[in-house]
Amino acid sequence: MENWHFKPNGEVNTAADITIRGILNMIMGALDAKDPRPTIPLGHGDPSVFPCFRTTPVAEDAIADVLRSAKFNCYAPNVGIPPARRAIAEYLSTDLPYKLSPDDVYLTVGCAQAIEVVLTVLARPGANILLPRPGYPYYEARAAFSHIEVRHFDLLPENGWEVDLDAVEALADENTVAMVIINPGNPCGNVYSYQHLEKVAETAKKLGILVIADEVYDHLTFGCNPFVPMGVFGETVPVLTLGSISKRWIVPGWRLGWLVTSDPNGILKETKIVDCIIGCLNISSDPATFIQGAILQILEKTKGDFFKKIIDILRQDADIIYQRIREIGCITCPHKPEGSMFVMVKLDLSLLEDIKDDMDFCFKLAKEESVIVLPGVSVGLKNWLRITFAIEPSSLEEALERIKSFCKRHAKKK
Amino acid sequence: MENWHFKPNGEVNTAADITIRGILNMIMGALDAKDPRPTIPLGHGDPSVFPCFRTTPVAEDAIADVLRSAKFNCYAPNVGIPPARRAIAEYLSTDLPYKLSPDDVYLTVGCAQAIEVVLTVLARPGANILLPRPGYPYYEARAAFSHIEVRHFDLLPENGWEVDLDAVEALADENTVAMVIINPGNPCGNVYSYQHLEKVAETAKKLGILVIADEVYDHLTFGCNPFVPMGVFGETVPVLTLGSISKRWIVPGWRLGWLVTSDPNGILKETKIVDCIIGCLNISSDPATFIQGAILQILEKTKGDFFKKIIDILRQDADIIYQRIREIGCITCPHKPEGSMFVMVKLDLSLLEDIKDDMDFCFKLAKEESVIVLPGVSVGLKNWLRITFAIEPSSLEEALERIKSFCKRHAKKK
Ligand SMILES: Cc1ncc(COP(=O)(O)O)c(C=O)c1O
Ligand SMILES: Cc1ncc(COP(=O)(O)O)c(C=O)c1O
Repeated sequence: MENWHFKPNGEVNTAADITIRGILNMIMGALDAKDPRPTIPLGHGDPSVFPCFRTTPVAEDAIADVLRSAKFNCYAPNVGIPPARRAIAEYLSTDLPYKLSPDDVYLTVGCAQAIEVVLTVLARPGANILLPRPGYPYYEARAAFSHIEVRHFDLLPENGWEVDLDAVEALADENTVAMVIINPGNPCGNVYSYQHLEKVAETAKKLGILVIADEVYDHLTFGCNPFVPMGVFGETVPVLTLGSISKRWIVPGWRLGWLVTSDPNGILKETKIVDCIIGCLNISSDPATFIQGAILQILEKTKGDFFKKIIDILRQDADIIYQRIREIGCITCPHKPEGSMFVMVKLDLSLLEDIKDDMDFCFKLAKEESVIVLPGVSVGLKNWLRITFAIEPSSLEEALERIKSFCKRHAKKK
Repeated sequence: MENWHFKPNGEVNTAADITIRGILNMIMGALDAKDPRPTIPLGHGDPSVFPCFRTTPVAEDAIADVLRSAKFNCYAPNVGIPPARRAIAEYLSTDLPYKLSPDDVYLTVGCAQAIEVVLTVLARPGANILLPRPGYPYYEARAAFSHIEVRHFDLLPENGWEVDLDAVEALADENTVAMVIINPGNPCGNVYSYQHLEKVAETAKKLGILVIADEVYDHLTFGCNPFVPMGVFGETVPVLTLGSISKRWIVPGWRLGWLVTSDPNGILKETKIVDCIIGCLNISSDPATFIQGAILQILEKTKGDFFKKIIDILRQDADIIYQRIREIGCITCPHKPEGSMFVMVKLDLSLLEDIKDDMDFCFKLAKEESVIVLPGVSVGLKNWLRITFAIEPSSLEEALERIKSFCKRHAKKK
């Protein structure tokens, strides 16, 4: 063999190994092709394939209109086209005590790219960031890639998965740059109260750190707490709000998201974080221009009944899963999900005969019952499971029936 | 002010400062709002706004069909959806002596993201890369971001902007990982012959380095040399081919591109570069799924007459610019463009009265004549200009008229 001089960048794979998709692919490899029953995917957060979760025709029409106008085939400014920035600023301002300017809004390739940008912008030698446990591992992956040290604070299941703020204070030091909250929550299905978010803001202010508020599941709430955007506390602490149309409109494949500086005091401008966001977008990929061009119409014209229909299904699903889990001895749900499309449940391995851990549970469940769920270890909690309940309710019933018989079959004989 | 702990990542701005867009924005700031004449943009490579360069209805129909099917609202695999990978493999294989497999094709957010991925994958301490001068500064920006040292080899205007292969050999050492060629060329409008590309391949093989072949302008040729993909020499040296639909279909805003391993000997698999590409895509943004879903139809159904029409306009434009530049004393064109949409021309400052350099030329031209061209310094050649000629031919005539009178007005009095 020749003496080739190129070698792969080892750091990339170290970062990439952390992602959920890799683990789900492995588990899907365990499926039994001979099982005649359909596979039920409760692993990943993408209900768009189910007919009951089809997006609104309003959104499809908006894209088609803009496409046919041929006015959006061109490159866009790296920060996004002005009408799209304006539309998103308006949309988000309705829930805030101040008005966002279009200049506060940066368009991104889904919320995922907003995460990439934030973790690129905040990187510097020695910096650390506080991430929730359990959490969304894309943060860990991108922090690793940017050489930002990760410190985890716990979310407390007994308190509706609220942030352990004492832990946050104990973890932070002068190299801590930010803390991340995901609300409504992935993987916990939490929806934080105004009071809790206020405490988060005060803690962050005291520590001199930014709040990164991942609100990709904004407005997907079906419990008691309404959705309160973290930006409400932008006067207390500068907030970077991350979002997208992926979840509320159920179009994750459209790859349109945003990064918003919810910062009426202009601290992010003053500290040059804003310049750095713009610089980062200058050397990053852009969302398709015609999808940017459609966002105004999508935001303005989508009717309440579409949102209501989706919320109603999610609420029904949450009821089903909460009820059915209670019938299964070896799995407990510490907190009924009130938002997003996920629930975290705890495995009691002492009640199971031949299941080593959560990973083993998921592999065997896939093989024997053709049901995919995500092992908790992949989101930071070993021997828990993350179950996505956003599927057709009848399929969810069927999946829980299969999980129940799986658990019965593997139960320890008394 | 509070003691905030976050600071911007200085490296981001250092990298971002290199981009063309920033310089063009500055120059556009010099436009005189009182000039009643329309501004003529010969600065950037995006003709999609001109009616004569409107994309084919076939492409628009493909997107609309796929959108209406609602089958592509979901997340895509990070490497791209299988039918899209297959379609691109077929499309590119028609010009190759071997067949690409769908697994050789990775979908990216335009060719720009393919550049990002390559420069992320090849990064390692001490690595250097050989880039053309003049070139496309996104490479310099992303190399800076990845901490890859850049070494420039010259393109030789007197040889049709061929690569100075002696310089390549002199620059390379055991830390050189790759060389980049852009063919058809930006900013030079070159189209390399089979023989020259063969020599490039042999040189790279001898040096043990990869060839990164940026073919985003593939098939946009209107001179004597036909377009020959670098992948033709994949048996000699592993080639990473980068491309997109941005230029040939004139839809840069659709953000669909590819990174292809043109490597029939499997060296990129063996050296784990392929694993690293996959890892990198795992932590990167994806192109919109429904645009991926449309690519098969776009590639299969676009008729030859669309391509011919575009090439005919570009040829006409190239003729106009080459003729007209000859009438302007202080600007010379060493080589008539044969491909892409750009030409590099040299300024003779000794013939001009009050023009300091190329930057000064471009600012004053914008102010006095409402014509935007790119200073050569931004692509690596000081006191040259890069002119984009892909506009309506009548506007191009008008622009050259204005440039001519600008030069006359600023000519040194004999
Ligand atoms: C918490 C969280 N943030 C961000 C994302 C990425 O969302 P998008 O599809 O907008 O990139 C997800 C996707 O599942 C998520 O769960
Ligand atoms: C040489 C070169 N490479 C890559 C690109 C990026 O192309 P895309 O629009 O596909 O991202 C361009 C765009 O102008 C270019 O000129």
